[in-house]
This record gives sequence, structure tokens and C-alpha cells, in this order.
Amino acid sequence: MNAEERKGFFADRDQLNMADYLELEYYLECVGDIRTALAHFCSEQSTAQWNRVGVDEDFRTLYAAKVLGWQVLEELKELSYPVEHDAVGKIHACRVTIAHPHRNFGAKLPNLLTAVCGEGTYFTPGIPLVKLLDISFPDSYLAEFEGPKFGIEGIREMLGAYNRPIFFGVVKPNIGLSPEYFSDLAFQSWLGGLDIAKDDEMLADVAWSTTSRRTELLGKARVLAEKETGDKKIYLANITDEVDKMIEQHDVTVANGANALLVNAFPVGLSAVRMLRKHTKVPLIGHFPFIAAFSRLEKYGIHSKVITKLQRLAGLDAIIMPGFGSRMMTPEQEVRENIEECLNEMGSLKRSLPVPGGSDSALTLENVYRKVGSVDFGFVPGRGIFGHPMGPKAGASSIRQAWEAIEQGVELEAYAETRPELKAMLGK
Amino acid sequence: MNAEERKGFFADRDQLNMADYLELEYYLECVGDIRTALAHFCSEQSTAQWNRVGVDEDFRTLYAAKVLGWQVLEELKELSYPVEHDAVGKIHACRVTIAHPHRNFGAKLPNLLTAVCGEGTYFTPGIPLVKLLDISFPDSYLAEFEGPKFGIEGIREMLGAYNRPIFFGVVKPNIGLSPEYFSDLAFQSWLGGLDIAKDDEMLADVAWSTTSRRTELLGKARVLAEKETGDKKIYLANITDEVDKMIEQHDVTVANGANALLVNAFPVGLSAVRMLRKHTKVPLIGHFPFIAAFSRLEKYGIHSKVITKLQRLAGLDAIIMPGFGSRMMTPEQEVRENIEECLNEMGSLKRSLPVPGGSDSALTLENVYRKVGSVDFGFVPGRGIFGHPMGPKAGASSIRQAWEAIEQGVELEAYAETRPELKAMLGK
Repeated sequence: MNAEERKGFFADRDQLNMADYLELEYYLECVGDIRTALAHFCSEQSTAQWNRVGVDEDFRTLYAAKVLGWQVLEELKELSYPVEHDAVGKIHACRVTIAHPHRNFGAKLPNLLTAVCGEGTYFTPGIPLVKLLDISFPDSYLAEFEGPKFGIEGIREMLGAYNRPIFFGVVKPNIGLSPEYFSDLAFQSWLGGLDIAKDDEMLADVAWSTTSRRTELLGKARVLAEKETGDKKIYLANITDEVDKMIEQHDVTVANGANALLVNAFPVGLSAVRMLRKHTKVPLIGHFPFIAAFSRLEKYGIHSKVITKLQRLAGLDAIIMPGFGSRMMTPEQEVRENIEECLNEMGSLKRSLPVPGGSDSALTLENVYRKVGSVDFGFVPGRGIFGHPMGPKAGASSIRQAWEAIEQGVELEAYAETRPELKAMLGK
Repeated sequence: MNAEERKGFFADRDQLNMADYLELEYYLECVGDIRTALAHFCSEQSTAQWNRVGVDEDFRTLYAAKVLGWQVLEELKELSYPVEHDAVGKIHACRVTIAHPHRNFGAKLPNLLTAVCGEGTYFTPGIPLVKLLDISFPDSYLAEFEGPKFGIEGIREMLGAYNRPIFFGVVKPNIGLSPEYFSDLAFQSWLGGLDIAKDDEMLADVAWSTTSRRTELLGKARVLAEKETGDKKIYLANITDEVDKMIEQHDVTVANGANALLVNAFPVGLSAVRMLRKHTKVPLIGHFPFIAAFSRLEKYGIHSKVITKLQRLAGLDAIIMPGFGSRMMTPEQEVRENIEECLNEMGSLKRSLPVPGGSDSALTLENVYRKVGSVDFGFVPGRGIFGHPMGPKAGASSIRQAWEAIEQGVELEAYAETRPELKAMLGK
């Protein structure tokens, strides 16, 4: 591409009607001339051939992605991660801001993904390493999406739970329990103080524990737990399934008494979540399998913050995400950003409840709370409740006791003195 | 986990009924004790807590993923790619074979993905880097999938095209053309000898070129081209869309005369492809946006071979994939493996047509053919046809001429002497 041709892929912000564009932030490692690589990067993700042979026309005006600005971060001796490629020249780590016209694909999630992290993005000559860092949407584009149906406030209202975190628990053993035993454990955990007993993300509709049978039992157990405790409870059923089964799964499980649904957003696809959002009668809660495969590395793939935004756009009322602590192999700053993306203003979309998870228990609650910096989060232990030496009721109680200690500003050890459930966790 | 506890996550092949298991191959970088890390790896991806508190039971027998074998490849000074983690000890690159019981999730693609590349896989203590290298399925599991409806033979029959590659062309300019101009270019390319004129993977149903209007025109143009040439032709329409629109998109576009459909498999989700497979009247052809985000790096993510297998399982009749040449940043061996996975025996599933692509033209055909090693492939230029200096009809002719030269064993230069279309490409 020569200098004249390149020009069509660069623009100043004030030359464009920014309501027509998404703004994309990428980290790139460019080999060779940077301006040429950036022009190719825009061309490959939009109109790679911008006129017919022999016709005087230029589709770049309306349809080209355009560089708004870029910054060279540093010159590198070699690519941060080795990749086979054919470019020659100096290697530069760059950050680039691109305006991508959404008229190229419309308000459709699969087509949006195709444009911003598709063939163009990852197969640009001279750019072997790419990480999509962020997407910003104009309000007019956001207005085409429904977003969360319930959001944080809707979940709080269902539970009558205000001014505190929402307490989830993943029923364990996660795989292998008969619906009867499963139901009994969930029941115990509700009695102990859980708001939401949930299926593991790996447990869905299987021959030895169909969602139909499980929700039948759990729906009844939930009502019983509500009567015994006087508190509202949620059974969060995992309806992750083939997309043409999900509406039926919704109907059966909700009729049986599941009052929130778990969906593994990327395994089913974001647009399956959006489809379900249009239909659902209960909150939708997303889990994160598959996402680490393209978001863990610092300099390649897609930043998890982008994924959080897209999940909120698709309509998840709560988003379970890798949380704090090096066990989850996610930098603390990144966890914070993901939490913020659930809560930040985003057109008129409701806020999603962030649920940062990972090997939690009564012992980690204060740390998570301090790091989140507010009560607007979900806390989701598994073995920390269902592996409690005194059983799941005690496990759930230990979580509530830990929260009471935090609220009252009392040291966990002191608060545990008269509370054997919490004490058992401290002794572990 | 102690030595006794670890045992439940290791097995010999002859102790298991292998028809109950998928076999998974992973590349891992383990920090600390390898056996412990591998036991955790299996536990996290299956039954992480294998008994209820105080109950003498062991769910590992039926539900645990189990290490069948492993190999230390080398000791490393540091992780191949830096990742935050909390494990301590020596670092080893390992290859491990795991038996994962499919009763945990059943014959469902989203749940399969959740099990083999979900939270368990990527969040195991002591294993910061993971690449899923391969999956093997027992025949009884494969039998639950429909696979390609048409396969290579079905596509050949539709076209009456045997003993040669199938010639695709991506209409360019890919973004911005009105349906009328688009149709005219496709028509020209059919006259020049293309089998299949296709939408770009980024061009789907947009306000300025609805699939309804486009297929209406293209359907007519196709019939006209068939009359003029006496050959059967295919218009491959891109119906990548929100999943709850795809069946309608199928019905409208096929009624209008699209006789094959393009789907961006990962942006819509594999199970949306499978849904469409049950419904479709025409071949389904997959494109690869998003896949590079998790498959390019040698030591992290998911090997593209796995993706190819899953796409075939979901029912794609042809799979467009990154092809040969360092422009596509995919090692030659990996491209070969992806081609083989389209063709290898896989239960009773039909073979998918492999379509290795990337900046192709009359000049690259022989190289691709030699590397594929058979005529069972699709060849898919874009600008190599629609950017041809004499126009798209000549562009398509140049491809057919290049194939004639190969068939006749004549040098391209010699064959081009009396063929201006081919000659124009050589002069480029």
C-alpha cells in the first residue's frame, strides 16, 4: 500500500460522525513500517478492496475502519511470543485506536465479533500479535440492545437483600450427585443463610441428573427453605445446552421452580444469551468457561474487559468471572476492570452484578469485599461451603457470620469464638 | 492433595471402558510437583469434591477425569509466556493424555467445550499454561452427532465437479457494494469459471445490502450463469446472524436461490451450526473468524485441529481455514493437520471439504495443490479474482487456466502465452 492509498485508513475524530463508529483499542506488535501495517489492519477488518476494477469509486469513505491515533510503546528485539510470519523490519509494540463503522455489520453480536476479532484482525500482514483491549459503543448503538432484564436491583428485589453482597454457593460434589442428594445439600445451604444455591457450570442436563428432575426437587426445596427461614431464596439452574434446546430448558426449569438460570456464555455463544434474554422470566447469570483460552495472556487475544462488556450487552444480569487472588491467575487490576464494566454507565443498560470467584470461603470474604470496594457483588464459594467439616448448613452459616463480623468491624477470630461454624473454617 | 487422594485421578487404559471416555491431549507447563498438578487438573475438570462431608462415597470411579499417561518434555527456566500465578517449584513442560467421562456432559457441544476447555482446564493450581492439543471420540459418542449433511461428495454432485479442486471466489469489494453491483460481479466470475461465488465472511445482512435482496438478485444471476455456461453454480450466502435469526435467514435465502450457506462458526457458536445442520436444505460452509484468538500460539489455548474436528462434528460440509504461506501465520504442519481432520475417518461422519485460504490467486494454486496432495480441497481467492486487472470474469478464467496448466503438466508461463487472463496475473 502506498502513502496515497494509506490515507483512506486514517482520520481525525472531528472528521467523522462518531455515532456511526465503534471505538476499538488494540495492542499490536508491528513488524516493519508502522503506518503501512496500521493501514492494512484497518483495510483487512473492513473494505480490503475499496473499488471495482476500472470504476472510479472509494468505499473507504463510508465503510473503512480508520486509525484515529496510535502510540509506539517500545521497540522490541523480538516478538513477545514467537509466531510464524513473513514480515521484515523493526518490531514495535504499539497501541492503536480505531474507528470501525458499525454500518458494516449492525447490532448483531456474531457479526460484531467477526469484525473486531475476526480474520482481518488476526491476519494482517506485519501484525503477528494482536490483543483487542477495549470497545466503546455510541449510545445509539447501545440502544439497539436490551441488556440485563433484572440487573443488580432486580436480583436484590427478588431476594429482599440490600446493603450487602449476594451469597451464592456452588453445590458440591458438583458432578455425580443424584438429584435427591443434590436437593438436600442445597436445602441445607439455604437454611444456613445462602441466597442462591447453584449448579456447577459443568453440571447441566445429563441422564443421571436431568434438569427437569433436579429443578422439580429444588423448586420444592426452595419453597420449603423460604418458609423455614422467612427469606427469599434462589435456585440457579444451569441450562447450558445446545442452542435449540435452551428455550425449552428455560420453560421446563422455570415452571419447576428454578428462579434464575446459569448460562456458559461463550460455549453457547453470546447471541444465544441474547436470544434467551428476550424470552426469560428470571435473571440470567453467566459463567466463564472458554474465556481464559483467549484472554489470559497480556499481549495476545482479547482482554477480558471486552468480554465482560459484551456479556452485559447480551443481557446477563450477573456475571461470574475469575476473581482476586493469584490462584485465579488474573491480575488484580484486570479483575477490578471487569467489576467496573458491570457497573459503569453503558447507555441505558442496567448494571450487571459482578461475581468475582475462585476458591472462596468465609476466610476470603473480607479480602474480596475490600478489593471490590462496595457491597454490589456476588460471592460464590463451592467447597468453602459444601466441604465445610460440619456440613453445608454450617458452611453457609460461616459465610454469613464472616459478613456479620465485617459489618460490625470485629476481627474474624474474635467473632468466631462463640460461633462454631466460623471457628471450624478458621481451624482448617 | 495427598498421594492416596491423587490415585483416584490416574488409571490404566485397560481399567476403563474407553467407550465411556473422550481422550484429551494437553500441553501443560506445570509448576511444582507434576503428579499433584495433574491430579488437580483432572479433579478441576470433573468432580472436584468427590464425596459429601461425612459420607463414605467416591464419585471419582464414574465421574473423574483420569490421567492415562504423561511425558515430561523438558524442564524450563521460566514459563514460555509470563502469567501471574501462585505455584512454586520447578517448571516442566509436559504432555498429558486424559480420559474424560462423557457421561458428565453428554453429546452437547457447549457442555463438551465447558468440560474440556473451561474453568477446570485453565484454572488448575500449578498449571498456568495449557493448550488443548487434540480430542478423540469413541464411535458411540460420534454416533450421536449428525455431521456434514452433504460432505465433499454432496458438493461435487451439486456442481458436477469431479477430479479437481472446487473453485470459490470471495466477491470484492467485500463491504460497500450495492446488491446490484455485487450480483453483476458474481455473475461475471461464474462466467469466467468459478464454481462458487461467495459473500465475504464480514458481509451478512445489513441495511445497505440485505441478504433478502442480495440472494434475490444472486439467485437469478446464478440460474442465468448456469444457462450460459452449461455448468452448475453455487451462490454461497453468509447468514451469520443472531442465532434466533438464522433459521429464518436460511429459509429466505434458500428460497431466493442461495444454494449454500456461510456461517462463522465460533461467532455464532458451534451449537448454532448444529441447529442449522438439522434444518438446512443446502451445504453449510464454515469460516474462521475469532479462532486465531485462541489457537495461534504454540503453547497456550486450543489447537486449531481440535476446532476443525468440532466444526465437522457440528455439521459443516466445508471448512474454510487459514491456509499455506507465512502470510497466514500458521505452521505448514498445522495446516496439513487441519486438512487431514476434514478427511480422516471419524465414525460414520461424512468428510468435510477443506478450504485452506489466504491471499490466493492463479499464482498460488499449484503450491496449494502440491501441499494438499489431492484434489479434495476448495480454493478461495478474493482479490486474486475480483482485483484482476481485466475484471472478475478474467480473474476466474485465470484460476481455471492455472488448473489446466497443472493438469497438463505445463509450466504456468508457457501456458499463459496464449491466455491473456493468466498472463495478466503473471505480469502483476
